[in-house]
Amino acid sequence: MIKEMVHRLREMLLFLFLAIFSKATGVKAYSRGGVIQESAAYCLSWRLAVETNNVRAWRTVPSQCLRYVEAYMLGGQYERDLNLIVDQILSYVNGIVPSSDGMDAWILDVDDTCISNVFYYRGKRYGCDPYDPAGFRAWALKGGCPAIPAILGLFEYLVQSGFKVFLVTGRDQETLGQVTIDNLHNQGFIGYERIILSIDFVVDMLKLMPSQLCIFSDAIRMAYDIPWICNLLVLSISNRTAEFIGQSAVAYKSEIRRQLEKEGYRIWGNVGDQWSDLQGECLGNRTFKLPNPMYFVP
Amino acid sequence: MIKEMVHRLREMLLFLFLAIFSKATGVKAYSRGGVIQESAAYCLSWRLAVETNNVRAWRTVPSQCLRYVEAYMLGGQYERDLNLIVDQILSYVNGIVPSSDGMDAWILDVDDTCISNVFYYRGKRYGCDPYDPAGFRAWALKGGCPAIPAILGLFEYLVQSGFKVFLVTGRDQETLGQVTIDNLHNQGFIGYERIILSIDFVVDMLKLMPSQLCIFSDAIRMAYDIPWICNLLVLSISNRTAEFIGQSAVAYKSEIRRQLEKEGYRIWGNVGDQWSDLQGECLGNRTFKLPNPMYFVP
Repeated sequence: MIKEMVHRLREMLLFLFLAIFSKATGVKAYSRGGVIQESAAYCLSWRLAVETNNVRAWRTVPSQCLRYVEAYMLGGQYERDLNLIVDQILSYVNGIVPSSDGMDAWILDVDDTCISNVFYYRGKRYGCDPYDPAGFRAWALKGGCPAIPAILGLFEYLVQSGFKVFLVTGRDQETLGQVTIDNLHNQGFIGYERIILSIDFVVDMLKLMPSQLCIFSDAIRMAYDIPWICNLLVLSISNRTAEFIGQSAVAYKSEIRRQLEKEGYRIWGNVGDQWSDLQGECLGNRTFKLPNPMYFVP
Repeated sequence: MIKEMVHRLREMLLFLFLAIFSKATGVKAYSRGGVIQESAAYCLSWRLAVETNNVRAWRTVPSQCLRYVEAYMLGGQYERDLNLIVDQILSYVNGIVPSSDGMDAWILDVDDTCISNVFYYRGKRYGCDPYDPAGFRAWALKGGCPAIPAILGLFEYLVQSGFKVFLVTGRDQETLGQVTIDNLHNQGFIGYERIILSIDFVVDMLKLMPSQLCIFSDAIRMAYDIPWICNLLVLSISNRTAEFIGQSAVAYKSEIRRQLEKEGYRIWGNVGDQWSDLQGECLGNRTFKLPNPMYFVP
């Protein structure tokens, strides 16, 4: 009898402890009118599922998570998450001895890896509104994306340590190339080896005359001084077919990394906020997924 | 002047809003003696970094996160995370039309995927204590692991929908085979196509006489009725060399999946709580990472 009471008391104390402690750990569930309200707990599950790539090809943030994502991005946890990942990257970097041949490379994505679009997404209800290509282009053209401090620190450390840093972005070279380069420069991203942008307008034109692919790409090759542009063009075209749709960033960035490896670079690390940065081929020795609960790039 | 005051007031209100809201979203930071205390916020960052595979080869849970992990596992958020992932899996499953040839397959891991070890890990300070092979073996021999309800539901749905479910585990066939099969059966995992266990003792013996690999593996092949055991043995041996150490589960499970594909199975999905379940070759059309903040299997 007493044994049973002690057991019951212990269970109650455990429950009480968990109920109190769960409030300090993001496991929040509060009762209202007898119904368990679990919005924040749901959004925490959703964020985890997005970051682990269990939820894919999502178009918008669930509208019930608007305030949650806002608080996450601006309230300090996003920075904490980034800092912990950068600590992990640095301890990995410190275990590498760069060779003297200058071929030790790192790859960093640009948007929401080096520089932040959070102030743009604030106007898009932190991703609760659907993707707006024209709106994003207008924002990017302002060149006002702030550096993400933890990644800027990582970037500087990599450059100082003798690594060649390649910035690889899906931003269009023709329309956003110069403003992106200027934006990165004024935010302190100085000393990278190369920035590799996308070539949307070429692809759009080639779609109109695919038979002229080879001649055209030779001309473009000279104009843009990208040694592997022909491969990219072929790839970009094939990606536009139904079979490859939804995987274009994976294939595009894989091709860029393959070409870097062909040039002899050893890719030690690959850092991005999208799983499409970190999947496919020639991924590098390690990949690091930075958090981004605001949008998904296929 | 008034404009500046309004601006300042708006900033203060935003700050106040975030400070209040952050308490409801797991972005908890409280001041004590002027120093920001961030234990729960740190553990949330750590958990995210572990689940996204940014932190790898970790041996123990940080001791400051003992209560956090306990609250996570027992306080409801772990179940919530599982339920959201299973919802995603089900909506993916419902988009597949199984063929009539009976070759549509799913792969599920066993430990902390189908059945739970949380009550064992409670005695190991939820992973704050280092891995104890003898202790875990003694626990597994009891055959008392409870089903994880969300995954049991998924399992039943897959079997009913006409998929062949393969359970793939690193548990040793010789010492834990029967008890594991019984444990799964009494927890409701009935109707799977095959369970594939590891063959530790063979590997241990072969390490003593690697030159006899082929003869020995033929004998074992008959004794165990596993058609591809020879490949596994060769693989297991090579994994024990320095170069492959730390990747053994990846290579082992890849080989098993490769053999299933050779048999003609189409692997639609692959579900596990460890990244080593979900990396390597022949991964299946989609992989799903279940949460596990208690231990890491290389």
